[in-house]
Amino acid sequence: MSMKTIPHRLYLTEDQIPKQWYNLRADMKEQPEPIINPATGKPAAVEDLYPVFCKELAKQEMDANTRYIDIPEEILDMYKIYRPSPICRAYQLEKALGTPAKIYYKFEGNNTSGSHKLNSAIAQAYYAKEEGLKTLTTETGAGQWGTALSEACSYFGIDLSVYMVKVSFQQKPFRKAIMETFGGHVMASPSDTTNVGRAILKEDPNNFGSLGCAISEAVEKAVTTDGCKYVLGSVLNQVLLHQSIIGLEAKKAMEILGEYPDIIIGCAGGGSNLGGLIAPFMQDKLTGKANPKIIAVEPASCPSLTRGKYAYDYCDTGKITPMAKMYTLGCTFKPSSNHSGGLRYHGMSPIISKLYHDGYLDAIAVEQTKVFEAAVLFAKNETILPAPESAHAILGAVEEALKCKETGEEKTILFGLTGTGFFDMTAYTAYNEGTMTDYIPTDEELKKGFDALPKIPGFQE
Amino acid sequence: MSMKTIPHRLYLTEDQIPKQWYNLRADMKEQPEPIINPATGKPAAVEDLYPVFCKELAKQEMDANTRYIDIPEEILDMYKIYRPSPICRAYQLEKALGTPAKIYYKFEGNNTSGSHKLNSAIAQAYYAKEEGLKTLTTETGAGQWGTALSEACSYFGIDLSVYMVKVSFQQKPFRKAIMETFGGHVMASPSDTTNVGRAILKEDPNNFGSLGCAISEAVEKAVTTDGCKYVLGSVLNQVLLHQSIIGLEAKKAMEILGEYPDIIIGCAGGGSNLGGLIAPFMQDKLTGKANPKIIAVEPASCPSLTRGKYAYDYCDTGKITPMAKMYTLGCTFKPSSNHSGGLRYHGMSPIISKLYHDGYLDAIAVEQTKVFEAAVLFAKNETILPAPESAHAILGAVEEALKCKETGEEKTILFGLTGTGFFDMTAYTAYNEGTMTDYIPTDEELKKGFDALPKIPGFQE
Repeated sequence: MSMKTIPHRLYLTEDQIPKQWYNLRADMKEQPEPIINPATGKPAAVEDLYPVFCKELAKQEMDANTRYIDIPEEILDMYKIYRPSPICRAYQLEKALGTPAKIYYKFEGNNTSGSHKLNSAIAQAYYAKEEGLKTLTTETGAGQWGTALSEACSYFGIDLSVYMVKVSFQQKPFRKAIMETFGGHVMASPSDTTNVGRAILKEDPNNFGSLGCAISEAVEKAVTTDGCKYVLGSVLNQVLLHQSIIGLEAKKAMEILGEYPDIIIGCAGGGSNLGGLIAPFMQDKLTGKANPKIIAVEPASCPSLTRGKYAYDYCDTGKITPMAKMYTLGCTFKPSSNHSGGLRYHGMSPIISKLYHDGYLDAIAVEQTKVFEAAVLFAKNETILPAPESAHAILGAVEEALKCKETGEEKTILFGLTGTGFFDMTAYTAYNEGTMTDYIPTDEELKKGFDALPKIPGFQE
Repeated sequence: MSMKTIPHRLYLTEDQIPKQWYNLRADMKEQPEPIINPATGKPAAVEDLYPVFCKELAKQEMDANTRYIDIPEEILDMYKIYRPSPICRAYQLEKALGTPAKIYYKFEGNNTSGSHKLNSAIAQAYYAKEEGLKTLTTETGAGQWGTALSEACSYFGIDLSVYMVKVSFQQKPFRKAIMETFGGHVMASPSDTTNVGRAILKEDPNNFGSLGCAISEAVEKAVTTDGCKYVLGSVLNQVLLHQSIIGLEAKKAMEILGEYPDIIIGCAGGGSNLGGLIAPFMQDKLTGKANPKIIAVEPASCPSLTRGKYAYDYCDTGKITPMAKMYTLGCTFKPSSNHSGGLRYHGMSPIISKLYHDGYLDAIAVEQTKVFEAAVLFAKNETILPAPESAHAILGAVEEALKCKETGEEKTILFGLTGTGFFDMTAYTAYNEGTMTDYIPTDEELKKGFDALPKIPGFQE
C-alpha cells in the first residue's frame, strides 16, 4: 500500500505494533566472537551470566539462533501507553537545506523518559518481576536510561538503584528529580558505596565518572546484594533485541508510505538505538534483499568505531564484567566531559562492532559544536528540541542531504531521533552563549587505552 | 464508525486535522459583556484594539458571529509538524483507581513547547508576519506560552521579547534557555524596562511578579515600540478560538471510538485550554444536542471562578489594557508563589466567565499538594510526567472516577492533559521531599482585590 501524499507524521495503529522482536544475530553470516568469563579466561556459558542478569535476559543475551522472539503481553501492554512512535517527514528541514533528498526520522522521544530507552527498560523490568526479584541496579549516563528504568520499575513494582555518571549528575540536576519522582534511588558515580567507586575516588577524587565506571559499581552492588540483579541500557545483545521494535515499526511505516531508505543514520554510543533502528534493514542487507547505506555517527570526543580497536575488552572500568570483542578505546579510557553523556562509552555493541568490522556499516565522528548547530537548525524547523545524542544523527542526515543538494540526487534518508533535550539545557545554554568547546583525544591518549587492553591466552595475546 | 477494541492512544490522520476553528460565541445565547476602552469608558470598537493587536487578531477578538473560521494553509503546515495530538485511554490509571469509569485524556504535551499553547502561538505569529510586523512582545507564566511563541516566531522569522513572571523565571531556569535557543529574548517581570515594572519594583523590590504584571509590561513595550504588537496566550477570545482545535480533534476521535464524554474536565488559569477543549461539547450543550457535565479545576491559591466576582476588571496589573467583564480576584490581587505558574492569573476568559455565570459549567478549587499527589499517581501509571497545571485536571478526573467507584456508574470522563512537567522539577522535588506547602487566600485578602475593582459609569458603579 502506498500513500499519495506523505503526511508530516505517520503513526501506525495499536494493532500494528510488532508482536515479536527481531534478533539480528540469526541472519548474520558470521557471529560476534564469544564473550569471555574473566574468572576462567574461557567463553562464557549462559549460566555464567546468571549471577548478574535475570535468567530470561541471560538466555536472550546468548541466543544467536531464534530469529523472532515473542513480546510478552504485559510488555506489550506498557508499550501501548506510548507506542507506536511516529515516522516523521522533515519537510521544513528539507526546505531550509534546499535539498532534493527526502528526510525521514523515527521519533522515539514522545514519552516521559524522553528517549528510546524505555523500550528495553520495560522488557528488563518485566523479566526481573517474573523472576521474583525485588531490586535492580543500573548505571545511567545522560540520565535517559535511568529515567526510563525508573518508570518501568515503578510500573512493575521493583526497587531501583541508579549509578549516574557524575558529570551528568552535575550537569542535569533535574534528571535526578524525575528519577526520584518515579521512585528511583540515584547516586553520583564514582560513589563511596562500592569497592570500585572507592578505589577510583582514592586515586582521583575529582573523577567525573564514565559509563564504564558506573557499570562497575552497579554490577558490584548487584552481585553483593541478595535478590538483586543488574540491568544495562545499551551495548548488550538483549538490548539490541528489544530495540528492534524501533526498526520494525519504522520499516512497516515506510512501506505504508511506499518508501525504502537509501541511507539510514543513527547516533552511536553503546549501539542500542542504532542497532534497533537498523535491525530489519540490516536483515535485508544480510539476506541480499536490499543494500541501504548505514551510517553510525559518534562523538569525536569518544570515537570507538572510527579510532578504536576491534579487540577483547571489559565492558566496565572496574574490570568485573565479562570481556567482549568490540570496537573499544580501552576500558581505562577517560572520555572528556562532553555533554552527550549517553555517548560517552569506551566500547560499542559487539553486534554493531562485528557488522562494522565486516563492512556492513560506515561510521563518522563529529564535533560537539557542529552537533549543536544541527540541533538548533532542526529545532527551529521541526519544532522538536533534540537530545544532544540524537543531534549526532541529525548532523549525519544534514550532511548527507547537503551532498544530495550538490549531486541533485533525490535520496531517501531515514535517521533515528532518539530523544528530546529538555534535560540538556545546560549544554544548550553553553552553545547559545558560545562557551561550548570541542575535544578530540590525541593519539597518545588513545594509545594508553589500547596498551591496557586485557591479555587472554588463546583469544588475545 | 465505532472501534471494537479501544486503543491506548488514537491519533487522527493528518487529513483529519480540522481545517476550521470553531467560534463558540456564535452559539452562545447571551454574549459576554462588551470590553470597555479605559480611555473612553465606553465599549471598545475593533479599531480601538489595533494599537495593541494585529488587525486580523483584533477582528477575531471582536467577531461573535462567524461560527467557523478557516485556518490558513501556512498555519496548518506548522500544525502538521506536531498535530493531531492523541486521545489516550488511561487504562492503567483506571486499574489503579479500581473505577468502573472510562477515563480519556487529550494529550497536548507531545511537542517541544510541551503544551497546548503552541496552537495559538502559531496562529498569532502567522498573522503578525502577514501584517508585516518585525517584533512581538508577550508575557509568560510557567514559561509554556513563551516557549511556544519562541518556536512559532522562530519558524515565521519574527523577533520576540518575553516578560516572564519572576517567580517562574527563578523556579525554571531552563525555560529561559529553551526560549533563547529558539531566539526569544527573556526578561524577569517586573523588570526595569517599562514604566509599569519600575513602579512596581519601587513599591516592592522583592515583588515576585504575576501574569497581570507581565502583561502590563509587554503591552507597554508593544505600544511604545514601532512595528511591534502584543500577543497573549490565554484569556482572549481569539485564543479560545485557536484552541478549539483541541476540542474539535477530541470530539472527532471520541466519535471514531464510539464514545461521548459524560464529564469533561480542564484546568483553568486564563481559560485557554479549558475553552478549547470544551468548545464543540459546549456547542452540543448550547444547542441542546447533549448535556455533558463540564468542570473547571483551578488552584485554591488563585480561585477566580470559585471565589472571585463577576465584574469588570483590567486584564493586567498596570491597568493599561481594556476592561473585560469576567470572574476576577481584582487586578491588584497578588497570587502566592504557587508552582503552577500558568494558573496564577487574577481573572478568567470572559467567554468561560459568562458560561460559568449562566450555569453551563461547574468549577472546583484544589490544593497544590493534592494536585501533585494526583500527578505522581498519573505519572507512575500512564508514564507521562504531567505539568502541574495539567495535574489540576488529573485530580478533577480522579475525584470523578472515585465517585463512580462508589456509585458503580460507568461514566466516560474526558480531561485535558495540557502539557508535560519537564521544566517543573523544582516543584516535583519539593513535593518528593515533603517541603511543598498549600496556600489559600483569606477573605480579607480577597476583599482588598474586590474593593479595588474599577468604577465605570453606566457599566459598573
